[in-house]
Amino acid sequence: MAYLVIQTDFGTGSLSVSAMHGVCAMVDPDLKVADGNNAVDQFNVLDASESLMYLLPYWPKGTVFVSVIDPGVGTARKSCVAKLKDGQYVVTPDNGTLTYIKERIGIESVREIDEKVNRLKGSEGINIFHGRDVYAYCGARLAAGIIDFEGVGPEYPVSEIVEAPYIKPEKTDSQVSGMINEAGEHFGLVGTNIPFEWLEELGMVYGDNVNVTIMNGDTTVFENTIPLAKSFGFVSIGQTLLLSSETRTVMMAVNQGNAVTDFGIGFGPKWKMIVRKG
Amino acid sequence: MAYLVIQTDFGTGSLSVSAMHGVCAMVDPDLKVADGNNAVDQFNVLDASESLMYLLPYWPKGTVFVSVIDPGVGTARKSCVAKLKDGQYVVTPDNGTLTYIKERIGIESVREIDEKVNRLKGSEGINIFHGRDVYAYCGARLAAGIIDFEGVGPEYPVSEIVEAPYIKPEKTDSQVSGMINEAGEHFGLVGTNIPFEWLEELGMVYGDNVNVTIMNGDTTVFENTIPLAKSFGFVSIGQTLLLSSETRTVMMAVNQGNAVTDFGIGFGPKWKMIVRKG
Amino acid sequence: MAYLVIQTDFGTGSLSVSAMHGVCAMVDPDLKVADGNNAVDQFNVLDASESLMYLLPYWPKGTVFVSVIDPGVGTARKSCVAKLKDGQYVVTPDNGTLTYIKERIGIESVREIDEKVNRLKGSEGINIFHGRDVYAYCGARLAAGIIDFEGVGPEYPVSEIVEAPYIKPEKTDSQVSGMINEAGEHFGLVGTNIPFEWLEELGMVYGDNVNVTIMNGDTTVFENTIPLAKSFGFVSIGQTLLLSSETRTVMMAVNQGNAVTDFGIGFGPKWKMIVRKG
Repeated sequence: MAYLVIQTDFGTGSLSVSAMHGVCAMVDPDLKVADGNNAVDQFNVLDASESLMYLLPYWPKGTVFVSVIDPGVGTARKSCVAKLKDGQYVVTPDNGTLTYIKERIGIESVREIDEKVNRLKGSEGINIFHGRDVYAYCGARLAAGIIDFEGVGPEYPVSEIVEAPYIKPEKTDSQVSGMINEAGEHFGLVGTNIPFEWLEELGMVYGDNVNVTIMNGDTTVFENTIPLAKSFGFVSIGQTLLLSSETRTVMMAVNQGNAVTDFGIGFGPKWKMIVRKG
Repeated sequence: MAYLVIQTDFGTGSLSVSAMHGVCAMVDPDLKVADGNNAVDQFNVLDASESLMYLLPYWPKGTVFVSVIDPGVGTARKSCVAKLKDGQYVVTPDNGTLTYIKERIGIESVREIDEKVNRLKGSEGINIFHGRDVYAYCGARLAAGIIDFEGVGPEYPVSEIVEAPYIKPEKTDSQVSGMINEAGEHFGLVGTNIPFEWLEELGMVYGDNVNVTIMNGDTTVFENTIPLAKSFGFVSIGQTLLLSSETRTVMMAVNQGNAVTDFGIGFGPKWKMIVRKG
Repeated sequence: MAYLVIQTDFGTGSLSVSAMHGVCAMVDPDLKVADGNNAVDQFNVLDASESLMYLLPYWPKGTVFVSVIDPGVGTARKSCVAKLKDGQYVVTPDNGTLTYIKERIGIESVREIDEKVNRLKGSEGINIFHGRDVYAYCGARLAAGIIDFEGVGPEYPVSEIVEAPYIKPEKTDSQVSGMINEAGEHFGLVGTNIPFEWLEELGMVYGDNVNVTIMNGDTTVFENTIPLAKSFGFVSIGQTLLLSSETRTVMMAVNQGNAVTDFGIGFGPKWKMIVRKG
């Protein structure tokens, strides 16, 4: 039996997440259900997509991810299950949540959820919590083997899956750039979609100083020359550094400090980082 | 074996909640233990009651809910287990937490916990954490089948269960009213105990404008005419709307905004909503 | 099969904690994994140690605790597994996290993690998330019985385990004193490492008034005479009291109030409480 992992923008400790766990338990009391990230940025489908990209490789093959970032709940957006090329499944509104997955992992096939079959009985007429009534319920049936992938509902072309616009990473002879997709206040880490190996390809090595610029649209928010280091503890406390994230992308941080609040950095499709040799 | 679901006002990620999980694992390592809502409003027994009402229908029959909102811990209030008419169990201080459950679901029988039998060995003399030492321990023994309901302790009359005062929903020919029982800052949803079908019974339908008044005691905090809509996405972003909650009660929201912080709305027995035709 | 309990300073609802759960599920899908405390004070190894002391007795013998408070990640600090004299295991950076455990429970043996064997395949070159790639992975292998304790890596002397300095509790004929090790904003409880029985040994009993002084270094932050009470509800709402914590240590609180924010109290090796007869 497969694992089921829940991610939402409901906030940590939400009552609604517990109801989703409960629906899974009603479908099959032996189902293994775990929390992914319930603190996805509200209504932010790109953050939902990034969060899934982070989790997908670290759960067993065949895991069913139920993702509920659904500002359009109850409107005409499709509810779907995507079967990924890496063997995982994602249950989600088709609203941009699959953007990075479609491009970087690849989607083998996608099906629209047939609510006549895969909706919690008695929930008809409730229009604002498909996460519980449709996504958790359908995902649990799939994870428990009550339905197979074909049992989700009718297939539709992968090319029709909704994609959200974002800043793609780019490399020239002298610089790399990309989107800031993480700027959480907890540790204050500034994450990007720039592959870390690109720095190495341009000849930058640990111990070098590099020039980092951060733009919010046309406004320069941060510009400085900082060390490229292997980890936080290789610079002094309070020092800003550039390093490789745990997903091997370019990340900026302050050792035991907070780059996000110190420099007022945000994330999303307006936020860009550029790195040049120092 | 039954599920055990924990709810407390300890806050999300609390160390104390983990100790409660651990006590359950010591009683029976195969017990299935899940989190309900650990962000119940502090010391607020009506919020505890509302939260249980939300969760009870979405977990399998026979689930044992351990609810620890216990401002009187260590004093003379009874510790009890209620057997509900819907097949669930609630382990709780008898302090008002059972108010809505007694009235709307019904309680078949209630027993006071016998601490000589159903208290963690070695915890005698600890007066401030019955959630761990009595409620989790006793609940786990019940869920695991080590004791049956009779094994909890002596029965007492259901009529003696403590009830907390609140504003009951009312319907006249021209308006409905009731208590605001939810006003969380995360999504800023304003929930009430007014059945949504009452609006339909007064002839209000999706697409109508309706007049909403919110009172804090004698003070009018909000009054406006807003659309009655099927879900958030049927009005423009930033628009206030009235809709049916996921428990089929009347709810007010701002689409992708926050009705709670925008309008300064609270919840509890002083907060009332009145809805009239617009 | 043993339980595995995760504690970190990543914050509640962290994506990274979910990846650690997922790695455990990949090691063995039947492993029982639970959350300890993911809100440990950032970079604070003494808080990590205190948090473990709180949880260790309330989980079944043989539980593997994976503790990731790791400001020196990627630097030369050892990664280790300690086998405790009470039958539990702790997987942690050897950075002070074991301080209280070494002194109060005792460590039978400690081994350095051999990353050639006990590191997630493919994670080589990622320097900032040993919590996922080394600690969760190694801990899961131990809990699942894939390796035994000897399989962790080479043993080293218990005497070499890193200890962090702190204020030890002291008792004279007229007073007790010790460190404030808890001052959370949620309930505003002020916890210490002073055994509660010491008050009784000096003749203080419930109902007495006692004199409490709180120092931050050389500065007196709080001084008052307050009642010694059995639990919160034995004093009026808003009253400050001294009581026994759920770990039988001296604690100060305000009934249904907040001693931490009301009096500006912090915790850690600069914060001391002194209690005298009133």
